[in-house]
Amino acid sequence: MAVRAAVAGASGYAGGEILRLLAGHPEVEIGALTGNSNAGQRLGALQPHLPPLADRVLEVTTAEALSGHDVVFLALPHGQSAAVAEQLGDDALVIDCGADFRLGDPGDWERFYGTPHAGTWPYGLPELPGARDALTGSRRVAVPGCYPTAVTLALFPAFAASLAEPDVVVVAATGTSGAGKAPKPHLLGSEVMGSMSPYGVGGVHRHTPEMAQNLSAVAGEPVTVSFTPTLAPMSRGILATCTAKARPGLTADRLREAYDKALAAEPFVHLLPEGQWPSTAAVYGSNSVLVQVAYDEAANRVIAVSAIDNLTKGTAGGAVQSMNIALGIPEETGLPVTGVAP
Amino acid sequence: MAVRAAVAGASGYAGGEILRLLAGHPEVEIGALTGNSNAGQRLGALQPHLPPLADRVLEVTTAEALSGHDVVFLALPHGQSAAVAEQLGDDALVIDCGADFRLGDPGDWERFYGTPHAGTWPYGLPELPGARDALTGSRRVAVPGCYPTAVTLALFPAFAASLAEPDVVVVAATGTSGAGKAPKPHLLGSEVMGSMSPYGVGGVHRHTPEMAQNLSAVAGEPVTVSFTPTLAPMSRGILATCTAKARPGLTADRLREAYDKALAAEPFVHLLPEGQWPSTAAVYGSNSVLVQVAYDEAANRVIAVSAIDNLTKGTAGGAVQSMNIALGIPEETGLPVTGVAP
Amino acid sequence: MAVRAAVAGASGYAGGEILRLLAGHPEVEIGALTGNSNAGQRLGALQPHLPPLADRVLEVTTAEALSGHDVVFLALPHGQSAAVAEQLGDDALVIDCGADFRLGDPGDWERFYGTPHAGTWPYGLPELPGARDALTGSRRVAVPGCYPTAVTLALFPAFAASLAEPDVVVVAATGTSGAGKAPKPHLLGSEVMGSMSPYGVGGVHRHTPEMAQNLSAVAGEPVTVSFTPTLAPMSRGILATCTAKARPGLTADRLREAYDKALAAEPFVHLLPEGQWPSTAAVYGSNSVLVQVAYDEAANRVIAVSAIDNLTKGTAGGAVQSMNIALGIPEETGLPVTGVAP
Amino acid sequence: MAVRAAVAGASGYAGGEILRLLAGHPEVEIGALTGNSNAGQRLGALQPHLPPLADRVLEVTTAEALSGHDVVFLALPHGQSAAVAEQLGDDALVIDCGADFRLGDPGDWERFYGTPHAGTWPYGLPELPGARDALTGSRRVAVPGCYPTAVTLALFPAFAASLAEPDVVVVAATGTSGAGKAPKPHLLGSEVMGSMSPYGVGGVHRHTPEMAQNLSAVAGEPVTVSFTPTLAPMSRGILATCTAKARPGLTADRLREAYDKALAAEPFVHLLPEGQWPSTAAVYGSNSVLVQVAYDEAANRVIAVSAIDNLTKGTAGGAVQSMNIALGIPEETGLPVTGVAP
Repeated sequence: MAVRAAVAGASGYAGGEILRLLAGHPEVEIGALTGNSNAGQRLGALQPHLPPLADRVLEVTTAEALSGHDVVFLALPHGQSAAVAEQLGDDALVIDCGADFRLGDPGDWERFYGTPHAGTWPYGLPELPGARDALTGSRRVAVPGCYPTAVTLALFPAFAASLAEPDVVVVAATGTSGAGKAPKPHLLGSEVMGSMSPYGVGGVHRHTPEMAQNLSAVAGEPVTVSFTPTLAPMSRGILATCTAKARPGLTADRLREAYDKALAAEPFVHLLPEGQWPSTAAVYGSNSVLVQVAYDEAANRVIAVSAIDNLTKGTAGGAVQSMNIALGIPEETGLPVTGVAP
Repeated sequence: MAVRAAVAGASGYAGGEILRLLAGHPEVEIGALTGNSNAGQRLGALQPHLPPLADRVLEVTTAEALSGHDVVFLALPHGQSAAVAEQLGDDALVIDCGADFRLGDPGDWERFYGTPHAGTWPYGLPELPGARDALTGSRRVAVPGCYPTAVTLALFPAFAASLAEPDVVVVAATGTSGAGKAPKPHLLGSEVMGSMSPYGVGGVHRHTPEMAQNLSAVAGEPVTVSFTPTLAPMSRGILATCTAKARPGLTADRLREAYDKALAAEPFVHLLPEGQWPSTAAVYGSNSVLVQVAYDEAANRVIAVSAIDNLTKGTAGGAVQSMNIALGIPEETGLPVTGVAP
Repeated sequence: MAVRAAVAGASGYAGGEILRLLAGHPEVEIGALTGNSNAGQRLGALQPHLPPLADRVLEVTTAEALSGHDVVFLALPHGQSAAVAEQLGDDALVIDCGADFRLGDPGDWERFYGTPHAGTWPYGLPELPGARDALTGSRRVAVPGCYPTAVTLALFPAFAASLAEPDVVVVAATGTSGAGKAPKPHLLGSEVMGSMSPYGVGGVHRHTPEMAQNLSAVAGEPVTVSFTPTLAPMSRGILATCTAKARPGLTADRLREAYDKALAAEPFVHLLPEGQWPSTAAVYGSNSVLVQVAYDEAANRVIAVSAIDNLTKGTAGGAVQSMNIALGIPEETGLPVTGVAP
Repeated sequence: MAVRAAVAGASGYAGGEILRLLAGHPEVEIGALTGNSNAGQRLGALQPHLPPLADRVLEVTTAEALSGHDVVFLALPHGQSAAVAEQLGDDALVIDCGADFRLGDPGDWERFYGTPHAGTWPYGLPELPGARDALTGSRRVAVPGCYPTAVTLALFPAFAASLAEPDVVVVAATGTSGAGKAPKPHLLGSEVMGSMSPYGVGGVHRHTPEMAQNLSAVAGEPVTVSFTPTLAPMSRGILATCTAKARPGLTADRLREAYDKALAAEPFVHLLPEGQWPSTAAVYGSNSVLVQVAYDEAANRVIAVSAIDNLTKGTAGGAVQSMNIALGIPEETGLPVTGVAP
C-alpha cells in the first residue's frame, strides 16, 4: 500500500526536486501539489523536467488541500511552515524543508531570523550520532539546511574523535539554485555566469548557528564557526572547505582512521581514497556525499572537504531519506546514489 | 534471473552513462567493464559519480573479457566495434554505440568514414515506424548517433504526413560531452565556457547521411539535409532546430495533428503544449525527448525543435531502451523520464 | 576639445557597455548619466565593473538632464526613445540603441511592435553599402539590432554578388545579456546554465523584418527570412548560422572571392582563413566580427556564419562606431578590436 | 620612440593576454613572438581573439629570436625562464611570468619545486610597501603568482597595521585558464562546467610559500598560511576568501581605516563601499582589484575578500604594470581598469 505524499511549494526548486525523487520512489503515490502565486497552473509549465506530472494542476497551499496524506513535504519560504504544520495534526508525517524547526536555541533563532521561535523538531540528518533513533517513527522532521549538511558531514568525524580545536573556518561555494527561483537581478544568468562572489560575510549567514549547533553537539563543547558562503557559476552543488587547528597528537593516520570509522557504515557518505578530492559534478542529482580530509602539517590544520548536491542531499534527498526512516521504509529507497556526470 | 551485461569502453562518457543507467536497472547485473588505456584502474578514479561501482577494476577490451554475458554494450571509437562484435557470437545481444553499423548504404559509409563498410544492424531508434519490430528479439543493435536521434524525432512526423519538402536545414547545438573525453585543446573548459562555435560545416559532419537515411525512409523519397552542428557551453544536451519548406495545403492545425498522431503513444517523446518550447535543461540526465513545431507563414516553413540529452536518449538511454525491446523487457524499465533540473 | 556625451539608461547592460567604451575613448568626456528606477543611486552599486565612474550618481531621464551634450546615447526600452529624442533638438547627435527608428516600412513596424511608427533614422551599420555616407554628419542614428548586425554582416556579401536565392534560414544563439537586466524567472542563472532553448520561433521575433530589410536592400529584391533565435548558456555573444540556396553557377571560389571583396576594407569585419570558423569567445568585449562561409555542394547551399559580441558590435560598439563617423572622428577610435579570451 | 617588446610563450594563455594588453599599449611595438610546439604557425590560428596580430608567425624560443628588444616577456613553463634570461644580457628588461625568481628563500623553492633555486628578482607587485622603488629602473622583474597577488592584496593592509594574528586561512576559487592551455582530462569543458573541486589541498600548492613570504614581510614576523585552491566553472578570475584571528583591540572601524589608508592611493586596487562585496565578473579582463573586509565579532576574525582577473592583474597586467614602472612610463598606461561585464 503506497504512502500518499503531498508537496507544498511544488513550483519552487526544492519542491521540484522532491517531486523528481518521489516520482521514482516505489512506495510513494504523489497526491496534492500546492503553490500560491502559481496556483491554477499546470505543473508542466513550471517544472518542464517532470513530464509524468505535467498535467497536474497546482492548488492553493491550505491545510485542507494538504490533509488526507500520509506525508506532507513543506517547501515554503522560511517562517511559513509553523502555521501550516499546526493545522495538519499528528496523523501525518510533516517534513519541513524550511528553517523554522531546525534550531534548538530560541536565542539563536531570534538573533538570526528576528521572529519568535516556533520550536524544534527531530533533525533530518540521519548520519549525526543519535539522529536515526530520533527520526524513527517521528511525525515531524526538520530537514537541515544545505550548507549545514555539507559542513557537518565534512567535520563531525574530526570532532567525534576530539581531533580538532573547536574553532572552525568554512568557505563554501554553492550553485545558484540554493538562492531559489524568485527572480532577483544578482541571480540573472548574465550576472552569475563567469563569476564567483561571496555573500552574507562576517558571521551573518543564517546557516551559521545550525552548523555550530551540530558540531557542538558532537564535540561536547561549544564550537565557533566562521562561515563565508560564495555563489558559484553553476546551478547545483555545494563544495565546503572546512578547516580547524589540529589538537595535539594528531597524525594523518589517526585522522583518516577517525573518518573511516565514522563514515564506513553510511550508505550515502563516501570517504574517497587518499589523494582523490570531491567535486560537485560527481554528486549532481544524487543523494551521495563525497568527503576527503587531509592534515596540513605546516599550518597544523585539519582540512576537510565535502561535496553534495544542494537540492538532493542538501534538501529534497535529505527529506526523503528522513521520510524513509520515519516510516520504516529501507533508508536508501528511491534515492539516487549515482550522479549525472559529466 | 538478471540479465548480465558487459560494457566495453567503460571509462568514457558513453560508457559511464550506460553504467549509470544499468546501475539503476532492476533486471540487469553489471559484469565485465573494459577499457584500453585505463585497464587496471579502479572505476572510482575514472567515473567518480558512480560510487556503487567505485571498486570495480577495468579489464582490457578483448572478446574473452566480454564473453559470457547476455548483453555487451560497445562504447568504442568509430571503426573498432566490428572486430569485437565478430568474435562475440550470436548468443549475446551486442549493442553498438558507435557508427559502424548504422548506415544502410555502403557508399555513404565510405564517403564519410573512408573505410570499408562493416554492415548494417537493426537500428535502435524504436520511435521510427517499423523499428520496434526489427529490434524485438534481435541479437545486434546499432544505436543511432546523438544528432540523428534529435533531428529524426523532430522531423519524422512532418515527413510521415507528407507535409514538408524533402530539403531540410538543421542547425543543432550540442554539449561538449558529445565530443568525448579525449583531451583536445578546443574542448578545454577555458575555451568552451562562454563560447558558441560551429564545426563540421558544409555537409561534412558524419551524422548527415544518417539523418538523410532516416528521413528519406519515412518520406518515401530522398531527403536532402543541410546540417550545421555547433558546440555550446554546456556538458550535455542537444537542441536541434530543423526547418523545411511547407508543402502546399499545410496549415498550423494539420501540422499539429500530424505531430500529435505520430508521437502520442511514445513513452519518451513529448509534444509540448502549443507555445511552450523545449530546453535541454528539462531533459538533463533523462531519456525524454521534448518536441515542438510551428508553421511560419511568412517564410512558408515548418520549424521543428527537439531537445534531448545527448548521452542519455542520444546514446546510452537509446541503447538501454533498445536492449529492453530486444530482450522483451518492458521498454521503459530502468530509464529516467524526469530530468535533473534546474 | 572633448565631445561631451550623455547616456540615458546607464544602469542597464547596453548603457553599461556604452560607458565602458566611452571611458576608454580619447575624444569623449562622460556627462550626465540617467536612469529611472535607479535614479539617485551610485553607478558603482549598479555597474561595479566601471570603477572610474563608481561615484557618479544617476539622474532621472529627462530632456533637461540630457541637454547640453554633444552626443546623447539612448539605451532605453523600445518605444521610449522617440519622445525623448523629440525634445533634444538638432544641435545634439542622438544615437538610439532601441528599435524605434530602424525600420523603413511603417507596416513592418506596426505588425511587429503594434504601435505607430516613429520614423526612420540613418542606420548605424557602416559596413552596409552606402551607410557611411548617410551617417557622416548626421544628427540622428538608429543603431541596428544585435541579431540583424550579425546576420547582415554574414550574408550581405552573398547577396551583393547575387550568389544566393532570396530565401534565407537563420538560426542564431545569443548570450543572456541580450535579454536585458530586468529579472525574469527564465533568465535566472539556475535556468540558463547548462541549457539551450529557442524562443520567438516561427517568424515572430522583432528582428526578423530588420534582417529582411537589410538583405533586400543589398539584393535589390525581397529577401525572405526564417529566423529562429536560441538562448545559450553564456553572458555575451551571438553566433549566427545563415544559409540560403545557391544561385546557378556558384562555386566555392566565386563565393570566397565575393566575401573577400566585400569585407577586405572593413576595419572590424574579418573573413577568417578557409577552414577556420568563428567563435563568440574570440570577440568577447570586442567590436570585431568574425565571418566564415562555405558552399555545401550536396545540399546546394551557402552557409555563412558570423560571431559578434551582442553588447559591443551588436549594440554599444556599433553605436560608438557610428558616433565616430557622424562626428568625423576616425572610425576605429576607442573601439577594442581584440577579444578578452580565453 | 616606441618600446620594442618580445613575447616568449605567445601561444599560451599568459602570452595571449600579454599580447592583448600590448596591442593596446600606446608606447609599445610588438616584436618577436615565440613558441615551441607551435613555432611556424600563424598566431591567428592559436589566438583568434587577436585579429590585428593574426598574420604574425611564431618563431622558436631562442635567445637569438628574443634579442634586440627593449623588453622581453617570458611566459614559459616553470623552470625554463632562468636559462633564457641568462642569455639575454642586461640591456633588455626581462619580465618573467613564471615562478623561477619569485621566492627569496632557496629552501622554500627547493621544498616546493624540487630543483635548484635560480635566484630572486625584484617582485612585480607594486602595491607592496617598497616594491615600486625596487622596480624602478630594474632590468629584471619576477611577476607574482596569480593567487599570491589576490591574497596579498586582500590581507596586507591588516598585517601592515598589526591587526591580525599571523595564522591565515585562505580558500580561493580560480577560473580554469589558471591551469593553462595544455589539454588534460580534468580540464575539459565537460568536466569543469557545473563543477567546483579543490586541488593541491593540505599545504602543497606551490603558491603557498609566496603568500607567506609576502605577508611575513609586511607583518614583520612569520605568517603561516593554510591555503586551499578550488577550480571554479569559469574561464577567468580569482576570488580569494582570507581570514585570520583578530588581534586584541580590533574594531570594525579600525579595520576599515587600515584598509582605507593602505589602498587609497592605489590606482588599481579598490576598497569597495561597506556592504558591497567583490565579484570576479566585475574585473573580467581588467587590471583592477576589488577588495572588501569585515570583522566577524562572534568568531573574532578578520575576513578579507579580493577579486582579480587571474590573467590580467594576476599575470599579464601585473607584468605590464611592472614594465611601466621599470621603464618610467606612467604606471596605468595601456592597462584596462574597467571589466567586461556582464
